[in-house]
Amino acid sequence: MRIFVVTGHTAAITPDFPLDDLPGSAGRLDILARCVTAAFCTSHGIRRYVEVYLVLRDQVTVRFEGARLKRLNPDERSTGALIKHALQALREGRSEGTPGVSVFQDGLEGVLSKLQAQGVDCYVLDENGRDIRTIDLREPAAFILSDHLNFTPHEEELLSGFERLSLGPVVLHADHCIPLVHNELDRRLA
Amino acid sequence: MRIFVVTGHTAAITPDFPLDDLPGSAGRLDILARCVTAAFCTSHGIRRYVEVYLVLRDQVTVRFEGARLKRLNPDERSTGALIKHALQALREGRSEGTPGVSVFQDGLEGVLSKLQAQGVDCYVLDENGRDIRTIDLREPAAFILSDHLNFTPHEEELLSGFERLSLGPVVLHADHCIPLVHNELDRRLA
Repeated sequence: MRIFVVTGHTAAITPDFPLDDLPGSAGRLDILARCVTAAFCTSHGIRRYVEVYLVLRDQVTVRFEGARLKRLNPDERSTGALIKHALQALREGRSEGTPGVSVFQDGLEGVLSKLQAQGVDCYVLDENGRDIRTIDLREPAAFILSDHLNFTPHEEELLSGFERLSLGPVVLHADHCIPLVHNELDRRLA
Repeated sequence: MRIFVVTGHTAAITPDFPLDDLPGSAGRLDILARCVTAAFCTSHGIRRYVEVYLVLRDQVTVRFEGARLKRLNPDERSTGALIKHALQALREGRSEGTPGVSVFQDGLEGVLSKLQAQGVDCYVLDENGRDIRTIDLREPAAFILSDHLNFTPHEEELLSGFERLSLGPVVLHADHCIPLVHNELDRRLA
């Protein structure tokens, strides 16, 4: 199992945004949508062994489970629609928006507690971390990234015990980091 | 200089598509838009030393030049709008849509001729190629990718003389390949 946890610091936590404006009124939900597709989509299908947690404003978490996921397309807008459906479900007291996309009121602390209870190794992606190509990795592993903003001081405190991994000399957007993590693990497991 | 050439087999070649439907009526222009942002966007800015050629239906080419590019945002829709502006310029007999985004009536053959005349090393991304981590690379280099469809027999003929590079054991969408190429070159030049 490969898990990606992405913190969305400005993202909408209610479904009241137009799909035409993911970067604006949805609070940079575009980058989170691209993280989801980068995590799941291969040329010929879906990586069923992946889970993605989008932690929205440290208050609401939308979880995508590859094993059960349906209706995921590679574009931003349709993925934004899955997030919107999940937030609509939360409003209506349901826990699932569409198959494989669930939602709960929890922030980063709750997500990390759950992963640690499951024995998942957690790594923080950080330009000052150790080079991912030089370290041992085993699955299940979780990789924690931030959207276009840095982790908050509270998030940094929660993440302080985890190993930091660097992907290379150029600092990239979260959605461009995910294919690099996958590639490193794909090569080792090939 | 790093160059990415992406062939869009079903992409619109006129500006008559709504930005709300890049995957549908624009003929999978969503994947081409994500290729552009993957090629240019880093966390803190634009890779000025990059050029992208989108070869649409082997008839029209939209070129993005990092050195002159303005108004590029990381989301699909606004990048789709830059392509739409370029196609509108073509219709009106102009060669540039917005700064750094030019358009001309040429297919893959013309683009390759231009690159070869400039002494650019051309590589085709191909799951059966040699591992990119094992080969010498120098810049200027051009990396040629296809959208969601395979290269056509005519394209394969044009590309038959170039070295084939593989990025890893899992076959990915073009936009997820681009960060892997960048990362390999970034690491070597660091």
